[in-house]
Amino acid sequence: MGWFTKSDYQPKGKHCYVSGGTQGLGKALAESLVKQGAHVTVVARDVVKGEKTLADLKALAQPHQIIQFISADLTDAISSQETLIKASEPFDGKCPDYLFLCAGFSRPKYMMDSSLEDFKGGFDGVYWVSAYTAQAAVKTMIRQRRTGRIVFVSSFLGYASFAGYTNYSPGKYALRGLSDSLRSEMLLHNIKIHIFMPCGIAGPGHDAENAEKPAITFKIEENDTLIQPAVSAKALEKGLRNGQYSITDNIVCDFARLRSDGGVPGNGFFTDLFYLIVSSYGFPIWRWTADREVKKGRQAVLDDYEARGVYDTHGEIIKRY
Amino acid sequence: MGWFTKSDYQPKGKHCYVSGGTQGLGKALAESLVKQGAHVTVVARDVVKGEKTLADLKALAQPHQIIQFISADLTDAISSQETLIKASEPFDGKCPDYLFLCAGFSRPKYMMDSSLEDFKGGFDGVYWVSAYTAQAAVKTMIRQRRTGRIVFVSSFLGYASFAGYTNYSPGKYALRGLSDSLRSEMLLHNIKIHIFMPCGIAGPGHDAENAEKPAITFKIEENDTLIQPAVSAKALEKGLRNGQYSITDNIVCDFARLRSDGGVPGNGFFTDLFYLIVSSYGFPIWRWTADREVKKGRQAVLDDYEARGVYDTHGEIIKRY
Repeated sequence: MGWFTKSDYQPKGKHCYVSGGTQGLGKALAESLVKQGAHVTVVARDVVKGEKTLADLKALAQPHQIIQFISADLTDAISSQETLIKASEPFDGKCPDYLFLCAGFSRPKYMMDSSLEDFKGGFDGVYWVSAYTAQAAVKTMIRQRRTGRIVFVSSFLGYASFAGYTNYSPGKYALRGLSDSLRSEMLLHNIKIHIFMPCGIAGPGHDAENAEKPAITFKIEENDTLIQPAVSAKALEKGLRNGQYSITDNIVCDFARLRSDGGVPGNGFFTDLFYLIVSSYGFPIWRWTADREVKKGRQAVLDDYEARGVYDTHGEIIKRY
Repeated sequence: MGWFTKSDYQPKGKHCYVSGGTQGLGKALAESLVKQGAHVTVVARDVVKGEKTLADLKALAQPHQIIQFISADLTDAISSQETLIKASEPFDGKCPDYLFLCAGFSRPKYMMDSSLEDFKGGFDGVYWVSAYTAQAAVKTMIRQRRTGRIVFVSSFLGYASFAGYTNYSPGKYALRGLSDSLRSEMLLHNIKIHIFMPCGIAGPGHDAENAEKPAITFKIEENDTLIQPAVSAKALEKGLRNGQYSITDNIVCDFARLRSDGGVPGNGFFTDLFYLIVSSYGFPIWRWTADREVKKGRQAVLDDYEARGVYDTHGEIIKRY
C-alpha cells in the first residue's frame, strides 16, 4: 500500500456478515461497519441478544442500509450453509462481500477435569463455528465469480499455549492452519483472507471464561491487559485498511507473531525486524516463566485431586470415563 | 541432558502403543521398539495389514515380549477409549508407558473441490485420530499415578501451509496446539509430551496422497526430498533420547520450527540460533516462492473450472452443496 493509494477495504455499501456479532468484538465491529454505511448481517444463537443488537444497529443506520439478525448454531455444517443462504436473500442471492468470523467461546479446564464433551465441544465452538461458514462462503464466491474477504478470529492462544487450554488452543491453531492455507489458495480467485490475533478482550465472553478458570491458568494471565471490544475492532479494521494478513491489537501479540507465524506475509520490514529481534529470545523467556508458574501451582493441584478422590487407589483397571 | 546422564527414554521393558503402526513411520517405529525389547501394541484399521505387521514384529521379538495388534477406528472417541483399555489388559490394566500417535492421512484438495466430507473427514483423520487417545491416556495415567510419554506426529504442514491443504493443515496445526498446551500442563504430573514435525515420508501414505494431489500443490513440493520411514523413525527416537520437545527429521523443518513454534523449549542454543538467523528471512522467502507458484498455476485452474461448469452462469441464488 503506497501512501497515496486508496485502501481496498471499503465497507460502505458492502454486505458484511458478522458471526458472533451480538456481543464483544463482533458487536463492536458490527456497529463500526453500520456507521461506515455497510449492510450488516449479524449471526448468533441467542435470540434475545440478537433482537437487542438488531435494534441497536438499526438506530445507527441510514434507512437504505439492510440490517439483519439471524439466529443459528454455526457449529453445525448444514446450518452454516443455510444461514449464509438466508443472509444472501435480500441481495439477490449474492454471497456477502466481507465475512467477519467472530463467533467462539473459551472455557479453560485442565485435561483431567475435561469431559469428552468439554474437549470436543470446546474445539467445535472455536474451529467449526468459523470453518464451515468459510468453506460455504469460499465455494459460493468462486461459483458466483465474486471476490470478497474472509476474516478469521484466532487469538494469542493460537500462537502459543499453556496449561488449561487443551480444549481451546487446538481450535485457535487450527483456524490459523486453515487461514494460512486459504490465503495461499485464494490467490487463485482474488479472495482475500485475513486472521485477527487479539489478546484478551473485555466483555461477557471473558467474564464467563474467568468464572471457572483453573488457578494456574489465571495466574499466568494475571498481568495481561484486557482490551475493550471497540478498541480491538478498531485495530482489526486498521490492519484491514493497511492490507495486513495477520492482524494484532497489542504489541504482545506482535512479538508472538514473529516467533510463531510460519513466515506468512509480514506487516512492515522495520517494525517486524524489531519484533523479531525482541521476540526471538523474549518469547521463549515468557514461556519459561509460564512453565515456572505451572510448577509452583503443582502441589495445590495434586492435593485437590487427592481430596476429590481422582486417584484410583483400588487397583482397578482402566475404565471409560 | 548432560554428557554423562543416561537418557530417560528407554523403551526396553516398556509398553509402547503405536497408532497407525502397520505402515510407514508407525511400522518402522514399532520394529525399532520391538528390537529394543519393548512390549508393543499396534493399532490400525486394516486387519490384513495388521496381521502381517503382527507376524513381522513377532519375528523380531524375544519370547517374553508382548506384541499385539488391535483393529480400531480411532477417529471415534469411544473406540479410542476402548482400544486403550483393551491394549492394557495384558498389563494388569495399566496404561501404556509410551504412546506414539502416528495415525493419520493426507488427501490434498482445493477447497472448491472439497465436499463437506472431505473437509470434515480430512480434519478428523488428522486431529481426532490422535487427540481422543491422548485425552484417554492422560486421564488414565493421572488416575493411576503413572508417568509416561505421549508423542504426537504433526508435519512441516503444521508449521506453515499453502494451497491444497485446507483439509490437512488445520488438523496438523491443531495437534501442535494440543501438544503445546499439554506440554505445559503435564509438568504437573511428570508426563512428557513431544511433537514430531517430519517432512514428507516415503511409503504408501505418500503414494496415495500424490495420486490425487492438485497440480499447484505438487509443483510447490516438487523439489522436496522424501525421507524413508526407518530414517524418520530414527530421527524421532534420537530427539526423544535427547529430551527434545519439538523433533524434526530434516533441516528444512528445523528452519520452519524456529519461525513457527511459539517459543516452546528449543533443541540447543547455538544450533537454534543458526536456524533462527537463516529462517527469519529465509522462511518468508520460501513462502513467497510458493505464492508465486500459485499465481503461475492460476489460469490453468480457472480454465479447468470453466470446462467443468463450476461457475454459476444462470444467475441462480446460492445453494447448499
